[in-house]
Amino acid sequence: MANEFAARTSVEQVEEGAELAPKFDADGLIPAVTTAAETGELLMVGYMNAEALRRTIETGEAHYWSRSRQVLWHKGATSGLVQKVVELMIDDDQDCVWLKVSVAGNGASCHVGYRTCFYRRVPLGKNASKALEFTEKEKVFDPKVVYGDAPNPTKL
Amino acid sequence: MANEFAARTSVEQVEEGAELAPKFDADGLIPAVTTAAETGELLMVGYMNAEALRRTIETGEAHYWSRSRQVLWHKGATSGLVQKVVELMIDDDQDCVWLKVSVAGNGASCHVGYRTCFYRRVPLGKNASKALEFTEKEKVFDPKVVYGDAPNPTKL
Repeated sequence: MANEFAARTSVEQVEEGAELAPKFDADGLIPAVTTAAETGELLMVGYMNAEALRRTIETGEAHYWSRSRQVLWHKGATSGLVQKVVELMIDDDQDCVWLKVSVAGNGASCHVGYRTCFYRRVPLGKNASKALEFTEKEKVFDPKVVYGDAPNPTKL
Repeated sequence: MANEFAARTSVEQVEEGAELAPKFDADGLIPAVTTAAETGELLMVGYMNAEALRRTIETGEAHYWSRSRQVLWHKGATSGLVQKVVELMIDDDQDCVWLKVSVAGNGASCHVGYRTCFYRRVPLGKNASKALEFTEKEKVFDPKVVYGDAPNPTKL
């Protein structure tokens, strides 16, 4: 597929310019960091190919490339939890995007059923406990009800 | 190098367990999303290898793996802008970490000189302007003064 974005011609253009010239990796993907516009909470980190980025820009709704399912992924198409993009930012070297989103429905963004994918804390320090600490006690939804028998995207 | 973290044995262990069992990619890396603890602002997205993650946990200061320089990178070693980790989170399938940090010095985290790496907005909508909008007008520091002749990490 043709890459419809600007070609990357110089460090100055990429870092200081006004042209959108994203860098896709060897798999044609760019990481996308998604936070809740209201709270700043990190909801998820996904990946976009050029088409997902273009559709996100055009529709104002988050689209990703699902690496586990290998399909274009309109987030919320199954669960109803569409992410409306309030603001889309790109970083200095244009190899990462940041979506500030407002989530429809119950506000959950994690396929396990929690509000955010980041529901466990890693204790810090040389002698810290090795046990992760849960920061969300209860799930927002039951993934079995929402996703049924669809395969779990988590890979070992 | 031996991976000192727990082996990944089941989806349930990874998603619902208290064991830190991070998934490093084919290059031995895991993406790290770093936000300002005070404001929730996204500062940068970096990568860690197992050693960088271990050192971050042990010291409470952010360590990354520099893909452009191919070295372990104690953030702030050159610039003085050390990132003190206030909270470290891991995501559902444990293939991404989230650092909430407090930044020393002038609070900048971007090698271009801005406070955050995400200083440009992508306009949304089918007929939106193609021009990126700068959301930071002035640099916090002059990268030439701080980094001198060190090679720019941005790659085309």
